[in-house]
Amino acid sequence: MTQAERWMLPDGIAEILPADAKRVETLRRNLLDLYHRWGYELIIPPMVEFTDSLLIGMGRDVDLSTFRVTDQLSGRILGIRADITPQAARIDSHSFPRSGANRLCYAGQVLYTRPRAPMGPRAPIQIGAELYGVQSLQGDIEVISLMIETLHMAGIREIHLDLGHVAIFRSLAEAAGLDADQQQELIRLLQSKAVADIERWVEENLGSGDAANWLRNLPRLAGGTECLARARELLDGAPAALRDALQELQQVADAVARRYPQVALFFDLGEMRGYDYETGLVFAAYSPGHGEALANGGRYNGIGAVFGRDRAATGFSTDLVAINTLGANGKREAGAILAPAEAGDREQGDQLWQTVQQLRADGEIVIAAMPETADADSETLARCDRELCREGNGWVVKPRSQ
Amino acid sequence: MTQAERWMLPDGIAEILPADAKRVETLRRNLLDLYHRWGYELIIPPMVEFTDSLLIGMGRDVDLSTFRVTDQLSGRILGIRADITPQAARIDSHSFPRSGANRLCYAGQVLYTRPRAPMGPRAPIQIGAELYGVQSLQGDIEVISLMIETLHMAGIREIHLDLGHVAIFRSLAEAAGLDADQQQELIRLLQSKAVADIERWVEENLGSGDAANWLRNLPRLAGGTECLARARELLDGAPAALRDALQELQQVADAVARRYPQVALFFDLGEMRGYDYETGLVFAAYSPGHGEALANGGRYNGIGAVFGRDRAATGFSTDLVAINTLGANGKREAGAILAPAEAGDREQGDQLWQTVQQLRADGEIVIAAMPETADADSETLARCDRELCREGNGWVVKPRSQ
Repeated sequence: MTQAERWMLPDGIAEILPADAKRVETLRRNLLDLYHRWGYELIIPPMVEFTDSLLIGMGRDVDLSTFRVTDQLSGRILGIRADITPQAARIDSHSFPRSGANRLCYAGQVLYTRPRAPMGPRAPIQIGAELYGVQSLQGDIEVISLMIETLHMAGIREIHLDLGHVAIFRSLAEAAGLDADQQQELIRLLQSKAVADIERWVEENLGSGDAANWLRNLPRLAGGTECLARARELLDGAPAALRDALQELQQVADAVARRYPQVALFFDLGEMRGYDYETGLVFAAYSPGHGEALANGGRYNGIGAVFGRDRAATGFSTDLVAINTLGANGKREAGAILAPAEAGDREQGDQLWQTVQQLRADGEIVIAAMPETADADSETLARCDRELCREGNGWVVKPRSQ
Repeated sequence: MTQAERWMLPDGIAEILPADAKRVETLRRNLLDLYHRWGYELIIPPMVEFTDSLLIGMGRDVDLSTFRVTDQLSGRILGIRADITPQAARIDSHSFPRSGANRLCYAGQVLYTRPRAPMGPRAPIQIGAELYGVQSLQGDIEVISLMIETLHMAGIREIHLDLGHVAIFRSLAEAAGLDADQQQELIRLLQSKAVADIERWVEENLGSGDAANWLRNLPRLAGGTECLARARELLDGAPAALRDALQELQQVADAVARRYPQVALFFDLGEMRGYDYETGLVFAAYSPGHGEALANGGRYNGIGAVFGRDRAATGFSTDLVAINTLGANGKREAGAILAPAEAGDREQGDQLWQTVQQLRADGEIVIAAMPETADADSETLARCDRELCREGNGWVVKPRSQ
């Protein structure tokens, strides 16, 4: 064991040092306060649960991402959470059941066995909000609005919002009579955006006919707001569920455009993210020049069924550290006041203590010099732009002579 | 898999639901702000590290408490942290080295394989502060003061402070020529406070003589401030290191008494907590009627040596959730404002959105009613003591007719 090996952190595991930590903490507070003002109540779920509670069909990604350990008390398998959403769903279903709307929010570290993207983090701080018990589109619109507000609060002004709807592929796959294996194959092709391969696959497996044509067109139905009109044209005659989905996308897009005219709207009708568990509208926010989604979410009705309570559900989440980094504005911290290590006699020492405590109560940073480091501690001194000096019968704050 | 098994959380693993979570979050902020005002800078270490970095000789307890998993990327063993202190020490040594004093603070979940006390938590939220690079007693006094302030901020007014010093046993064991096995045996007896067994063990192993007498007296040297005077008498002629330790205890006790005259001081010279890694003064805070220590800490100089930097170190930590529960004062949350689900026409809808956003910007909680739950959602309605109503050409807040 060399010292260097002891210092090393695992790949994708980061520590956050003071300058950044202060800003991450400030953003964390601002976001939780934002959610609070929208009626979303904070929950603090634990970092481990039985895998039976954590892995409830929210996708193979979450399953593969979850570290497992054996519980010495029960002998059962525990998972270190890779996603807080299933915990929120469990809490809505069982711990904190409400007959009507339940608005929950959270912030906490999660852990992945492998990064989700090359060089990506394995221990991000997931922060997000979930809305349970609301089936109507107003729920989706509220959650998307809150996601946009989240990015604005992080200082990210330029936002691209991608909208999709899992019912589009689902209804076309049903109309084409695809079996489960065929669906998986086609989903994989759609995810890789391989237009030529999709053409060939549809040709070989489905030949011609309406359903084949509709599926063939899917990867082309991506782009700006004109995309929805094109979809209505190209998918003319498609099942009612698909037309309803297009209608929902239009309504949500209209509402978001009225609230946030500066947000650029994009559609991707072949979007397959979260197809395993999402049940309706899906959405993701991007920032120009940043490849990965900054935040995403969608409707995942029925997730609570495994806990005995089948509820409407929609929500979003983001990585607090990532959006803090992207939205960084580099505000400088206020300077501190240095208190001397020696105070003369005991009475003066008591008086110094009272003064220091009063300044701290007033919100000032006061750092007590230590006898052995009073002169040599250049880093601490650099943080202090003022100092406490003895004057007359008391202690006063003066600019520090550098 | 029954539903009940899915709901269950592992023993000692708790989730924190909204009413408590709000108060835990408020206390967390108040404490981090307190540490900030004392010059302690926030760090956010990850929840996992290589065990080589986490298990650096801070005691067998931490070692046994740490869950281990294999890192799929490196093949090395990762530990889920059971203590944040070694992470802070690593950061002081390597990530964020300062030549002078380094004041760090943190708050985060840790995980134990088994509870530390019967029915105790296995996933507490550890919050604490560490002071590196300061050898003088003023460092110990600062850290103890900050621990007391922490409990005060949690609403815990009645505090018993226990003080000990590991140099007392260490110097006596050396004077008596105890080998490592003998030390372990005697430590175990001292920890169980088994006075008769200690007498017998000393008789059998050491017979009579000064060192034997001093060790025999150790378990009796516990109690109030008179204890130090008794110790000076009973341990007369003991090694210089022991007399220095008594002197340090006296100085720290005097300083704390002047700052916090309402804190009751106790001494336990046979205290063995953290003997594996502590190097000087050790301390713990208790509250009457609560058996376990609420917060504890001590001096652990030299811990950074494994990272190549041997530094003076002292600090304390506590369980945020436990002190929040104990200090609970049950403040009621402010009521929310209900916004209607329907707004008439589109213009009125836009106006409603502006009004809602302005109220939220002013710090109010505004919950948007959803079409399908507007009448039935009794829990949400119960949170709202006011509502937004259409009046004239705008929207106004009115008391809600219950």
